[in-house]
Amino acid sequence: MERSLDHYLDELRHDLLRMGGLVEEMIGGAVQALVDRDDGLARAVIAHDRQVDLLEKQIDEAGNTSIVRFQPAARDLRFLVSVMKSATDLERMGDSAVNIAEAALVLVGEPPLKPYIDLPRLAALVREMVKESLDAFVQKDAARAIAVCRRDDEVDGLYKQLFRELLTYMMEDAKYITRALHLLLVARNLERIADHATNIAEDVVYYVEGRDIRHGGAG
Amino acid sequence: MERSLDHYLDELRHDLLRMGGLVEEMIGGAVQALVDRDDGLARAVIAHDRQVDLLEKQIDEAGNTSIVRFQPAARDLRFLVSVMKSATDLERMGDSAVNIAEAALVLVGEPPLKPYIDLPRLAALVREMVKESLDAFVQKDAARAIAVCRRDDEVDGLYKQLFRELLTYMMEDAKYITRALHLLLVARNLERIADHATNIAEDVVYYVEGRDIRHGGAG
Repeated sequence: MERSLDHYLDELRHDLLRMGGLVEEMIGGAVQALVDRDDGLARAVIAHDRQVDLLEKQIDEAGNTSIVRFQPAARDLRFLVSVMKSATDLERMGDSAVNIAEAALVLVGEPPLKPYIDLPRLAALVREMVKESLDAFVQKDAARAIAVCRRDDEVDGLYKQLFRELLTYMMEDAKYITRALHLLLVARNLERIADHATNIAEDVVYYVEGRDIRHGGAG
Repeated sequence: MERSLDHYLDELRHDLLRMGGLVEEMIGGAVQALVDRDDGLARAVIAHDRQVDLLEKQIDEAGNTSIVRFQPAARDLRFLVSVMKSATDLERMGDSAVNIAEAALVLVGEPPLKPYIDLPRLAALVREMVKESLDAFVQKDAARAIAVCRRDDEVDGLYKQLFRELLTYMMEDAKYITRALHLLLVARNLERIADHATNIAEDVVYYVEGRDIRHGGAG
């Protein structure tokens, strides 16, 4: 039996949410592994990445097939393009979570530095942005998506604060340098995840309203 | 007069190359500004980013319009999807070039560290990858695109070498830490640009051969 366009659209929405759920878990797990010095959890996060990669391929294929087969009208097409772009962003987030898990593995035997307190705060904010961007997608809620974009400044503020703090550690004693450097890269990866969540939120606005708010177009 | 699909495809190809040329220049300029401590050049690079952003929007719009209006067959559709994805990658490369130019501005008054010698080497390799990925696109040359993907390992090797070198500086004397940290972030940005060039190369293979070689699919 020939499947309908709606069938494809439903399946794509479902796969995107599944992918988003996986990536959220990976981000949370990677930071947890860092804080708890849990190398088993770090390895589990790294192992999950394959599933995320496969989901991206699957979404891309189903999206392209839908466009070729059904030649959808403007709004459905915007949905398809947005889903495929968002899948790419989620896949990159997965890579960032892997980077964090790898840092956790390196740091597993080291005594903690104080910024462990701020990193989970940054991580919680970033996860919230990921969740909100996907919820906005499902709800077709452009206002909610724009709120995600606005939170990016908070992330940048926290990142800069962490940067200064870690730099101070490095200056204080050379024995902190390696640890602080790894934590800095962790913070950098969290900041990149927030950027990708912002991209998804921008795609939501494009899908729902048909306008491009990137690069300051939000007014 | 109604414009044909071929007209759109030609224009998109042209805009993508123009965008690629701009981004290549930005990468080269940013690294040059760093090495020569040339704050005018760094500012010029940062100013160019707006043009790159506009070109991305323009390509996205023209791509979506072409799909809706002409409902193209498989190969033309793959071309359109690949062009839009590549434009996104080029836009991110532009952002990385801006990050490098900003680091150049910070470092403009500082005495140089030795790794300035290795950074331009990494930058030259990365620019070559950007150029090759776009040439492969225009020539529809999948083999050339796959060669770009393979060079990514070279970049990772050079990056790791630089990382170790900069870490050694930091350990040696606290007065090197800030400078070394900024150079580390420059190296990281160059490595990310190489990742984006690899993405474009993967899109070329998808466009030319209709197969997805991401995540180890190249065999």
